[in-house]
Amino acid sequence: MMKGTSASAGIGIGKAVIVEEAQLVIEHRAVADASAEKDRFQKALEKAKEETEALARDLATRVGEKEAEILNGHLMLLGDPMLTGEIENVIAAESVCSEMAIENVCNMYADMFASMGDELMQQRATDMRDIKTRMQKILLGVKSVDIAALPAGTVIVAKDLTPSMTAGINPKNVTGIVTELGGKTSHSAILARALEIPAVVAVENFLSKVQDGDDIVLDGSEGIVIVNPSQEEKEEYQAKREAYLKEKKELEQYIGKPTITKDGVQVELVANIGKPEDVDKVLQYDGEGVGLFRTEFLFMDRTAMPTEEEQFEAYQKVAIAMNGKPVIIRTLDIGGDKEIPYMGLEKDENPFLGYRAVRFCLDRKDDVYKPQLRALLRASAFGNIKIMVPLVTCVEEYRQVKALIEEIKEELDSKKIAYNKDIQVGIMVETAAASLMADAFAKEVDFFSIGTNDLTQYTMSVDRGNDKVSYLYSPLNPAVLRSIRNIIQCGRKENIMVGMCGEAASDPMMIPLLLAFGLNEFSMSASAILNARKLITGYSVAELQEVADKAMSFVTTEEVENYMKEFISK
Amino acid sequence: MMKGTSASAGIGIGKAVIVEEAQLVIEHRAVADASAEKDRFQKALEKAKEETEALARDLATRVGEKEAEILNGHLMLLGDPMLTGEIENVIAAESVCSEMAIENVCNMYADMFASMGDELMQQRATDMRDIKTRMQKILLGVKSVDIAALPAGTVIVAKDLTPSMTAGINPKNVTGIVTELGGKTSHSAILARALEIPAVVAVENFLSKVQDGDDIVLDGSEGIVIVNPSQEEKEEYQAKREAYLKEKKELEQYIGKPTITKDGVQVELVANIGKPEDVDKVLQYDGEGVGLFRTEFLFMDRTAMPTEEEQFEAYQKVAIAMNGKPVIIRTLDIGGDKEIPYMGLEKDENPFLGYRAVRFCLDRKDDVYKPQLRALLRASAFGNIKIMVPLVTCVEEYRQVKALIEEIKEELDSKKIAYNKDIQVGIMVETAAASLMADAFAKEVDFFSIGTNDLTQYTMSVDRGNDKVSYLYSPLNPAVLRSIRNIIQCGRKENIMVGMCGEAASDPMMIPLLLAFGLNEFSMSASAILNARKLITGYSVAELQEVADKAMSFVTTEEVENYMKEFISK
Repeated sequence: MMKGTSASAGIGIGKAVIVEEAQLVIEHRAVADASAEKDRFQKALEKAKEETEALARDLATRVGEKEAEILNGHLMLLGDPMLTGEIENVIAAESVCSEMAIENVCNMYADMFASMGDELMQQRATDMRDIKTRMQKILLGVKSVDIAALPAGTVIVAKDLTPSMTAGINPKNVTGIVTELGGKTSHSAILARALEIPAVVAVENFLSKVQDGDDIVLDGSEGIVIVNPSQEEKEEYQAKREAYLKEKKELEQYIGKPTITKDGVQVELVANIGKPEDVDKVLQYDGEGVGLFRTEFLFMDRTAMPTEEEQFEAYQKVAIAMNGKPVIIRTLDIGGDKEIPYMGLEKDENPFLGYRAVRFCLDRKDDVYKPQLRALLRASAFGNIKIMVPLVTCVEEYRQVKALIEEIKEELDSKKIAYNKDIQVGIMVETAAASLMADAFAKEVDFFSIGTNDLTQYTMSVDRGNDKVSYLYSPLNPAVLRSIRNIIQCGRKENIMVGMCGEAASDPMMIPLLLAFGLNEFSMSASAILNARKLITGYSVAELQEVADKAMSFVTTEEVENYMKEFISK
Repeated sequence: MMKGTSASAGIGIGKAVIVEEAQLVIEHRAVADASAEKDRFQKALEKAKEETEALARDLATRVGEKEAEILNGHLMLLGDPMLTGEIENVIAAESVCSEMAIENVCNMYADMFASMGDELMQQRATDMRDIKTRMQKILLGVKSVDIAALPAGTVIVAKDLTPSMTAGINPKNVTGIVTELGGKTSHSAILARALEIPAVVAVENFLSKVQDGDDIVLDGSEGIVIVNPSQEEKEEYQAKREAYLKEKKELEQYIGKPTITKDGVQVELVANIGKPEDVDKVLQYDGEGVGLFRTEFLFMDRTAMPTEEEQFEAYQKVAIAMNGKPVIIRTLDIGGDKEIPYMGLEKDENPFLGYRAVRFCLDRKDDVYKPQLRALLRASAFGNIKIMVPLVTCVEEYRQVKALIEEIKEELDSKKIAYNKDIQVGIMVETAAASLMADAFAKEVDFFSIGTNDLTQYTMSVDRGNDKVSYLYSPLNPAVLRSIRNIIQCGRKENIMVGMCGEAASDPMMIPLLLAFGLNEFSMSASAILNARKLITGYSVAELQEVADKAMSFVTTEEVENYMKEFISK
């Protein structure tokens, strides 16, 4: 049994087919006429673009727009005048064939990207190698591996899958994917999830342990792979597979159903998203809205601030796609721990207790906060957008944000630009201070959303990213539960909506407690929604009161966890 | 007007006397008989030791044991065989006179210490130069500057005062001290405070702006110095001086008085200390005990863990000196932000939310926590020691510490080693989690001490050391006040003592609120005790209830501050 990174849920059982890029032999061939060679390169480049566009179209139809975007990244690289110009320079300066010029220039870039360390750059390195091979194959007249023609019951095994390879996969025939490289957010992993093929990535030295035709079972949820399993193991995984598929099928029946408890309490079941494209999945899993749209993506991985217009388009896109359903958009939540060079943020000694989120935004009203709030207000004309302020600790901060919004509303009025005059403005409740003052906040804000990840961190004085102390991190800690209960009670007393957008909202042990406390809105990753609906519709809020009272009577996390584990397993 | 570092409180008014070490001329003189020259050096060394011992004795009688310890540092250096051995080596190897050998070797060490950057090492550099000069003067037959003979009304002005110079000062004649170098904890500053002479240190380029005989006024509390003040300024500082002395005199009447409110509520007024020697000041200012003895000093600035024996001696010393009065000793409160190389602590991404204090201690029971707890238990046989656990977030942590203490008690019993079987074990309440669970903790622990510095930090999610966000840091923030009130109420309900050892305990705006909430014990720096006693004895707890109710009705820090400012100015 080998462990890797869980990349796409589900159980795969089948025969290994090792998929490797054809080994291209690139030789140094001198050319006499550099100008003619440049023409040859240009023709191959055009053909590579056409092939990629065709693949992207195919992928968009078969899988989804979002997945096709990966190939748009390839098109960008193929269209980059710096890259192609450099290849032409090498052809001319060294009187060398296009294949070799491509080899050298693309490898240089790929190595440079790879050395930068982070996952995004690793992906760019993979992309660069992918387009290199595509161009060279065209020049050499080599046909691509035909992944589309793999037999039924195939487990694809590869060093790494290039997006071009993944794109050709027929999910009817491919039962699983295992790779040596890649991460949870690598393109292959994203595509595997989109195609709903179980996948495990980053299995060390896997290719040395497997041969074409070996039996393979894999658990994409647990990140486990077994080569040539015993009969017993095979049967075990067969049973797991059936249970997984049955559960998945069963959950589908909750699509289109209201999220309402047995005793008639209706709650909202909404999704956390990080990019406009994530809306596809929200709709697929029947999310009733967006409970948290993080806006950091707009600011990351770029060299300058996004314009108000770029932001407006992103917010508008989600508002329109959600078609009147609520879309809660959180204003910029960054600090000195994120690397956004153009922001000029210094690294704080304690970034989580530092200059970040609303503190930073209120300090940078003109260049950061006003453009974002203006974009949000303008986009509010196109759907049900609500604005959410992160890391609030005192009412003064909320009042300042409100004043800024009023100022912008006046500007928009004077320019006759449309926006929702009744736009709701709420806060993330994620600090001890906001929790302690929840009654006061509830009188001023339009809604609460409890951010359990940070609330737990700050309540327990624990950085959950720190392995040495993360044992103290649990939303089932009695102190955290008291804080959550108090926030919900204060919000409900003033009749404002109280949601939760931390990971606890989809935790089966937390859901009964949250229902008993009176939470109105549960926000989670889209794929968790149907299971949460199943759980919620199975409970009666009245009956849960006793459970909650009992859970709240304990003083240690362990007691609460044991009690809730026992309760949900009944 | 010039700004420096406030080193010793009070107003000084007088004539400048610039005190400089006699400029010794050290020449390279060849010696024929190295052995005879070594004898000459040894004799001078002995004389230097004798002089230093005499100065130390004088200082101990006139000022205090603690201050004399500075000169013990000199004796240590004079007795260091490495230093003296190296001087002898230079004499022999270079056939050079003792003066020059001393000059070279001592300067080398002084420069090395000075280059290390921190204040402690700077002080060692000063010490090294001080003993160098003393030995050279003896060898050259030069008499020391007679600081003891300065006329009345002198303001001593110097580049830096060596401890030997400061030791000779007659506080009757010296009205103030101003230096270009030094810091708040430099020896000169410590001595100035012990002698109660107003002092400002670290005034940049001061010597270039003042001449012998210039009029000087200085405010040691504010760190302000004026050379040749106007008549108006002189009168202003004269008035300030009288007010300061009058207040100081008035406060003396509170020595020996009970700390009891007008309506008969008695509270404990105790001190925070960092080293055993600080007990002198606690007794001087009539502290009723020690509310917080930080034990970090035992572990800092050394290359190996202190032994159990060393710890025992330090704790025992304080217990005996306090003679039955309560001494609350906090167990080790360090983390990845403190530089203690031998502990092997890595720097955390968020040190304040990381591996520190009780988390670290419970993870390092054998080599760190048990020796400290054993030393504390053994010392408890000599006085009224109580053990306090920092950074507690959950009852499990407290239970683990208690279990460890029980284990050690059994060990001590089996070895027939004395300790206080009823030793109290309490917690610092300084995290949001501990505050939220204060009712549960109050049922298990022997006492609470509210650490307002950290409690405010964690409640507000603010690193107060971070200038960009410290504006959010205030114990008068309504969320922090609610937390404090809740902790006190929970403790009082279970009849355990509730103290406070953060800076808020001596804050005139906080004292009325804390009395109204029912705080039992106020712990602060020793010099703040008499003023706090004056304030407390002036209030009636019953009358303060209304004030507290009003203060707690506000939702912003500003409103609370304004209200309390107005109240105390009445």
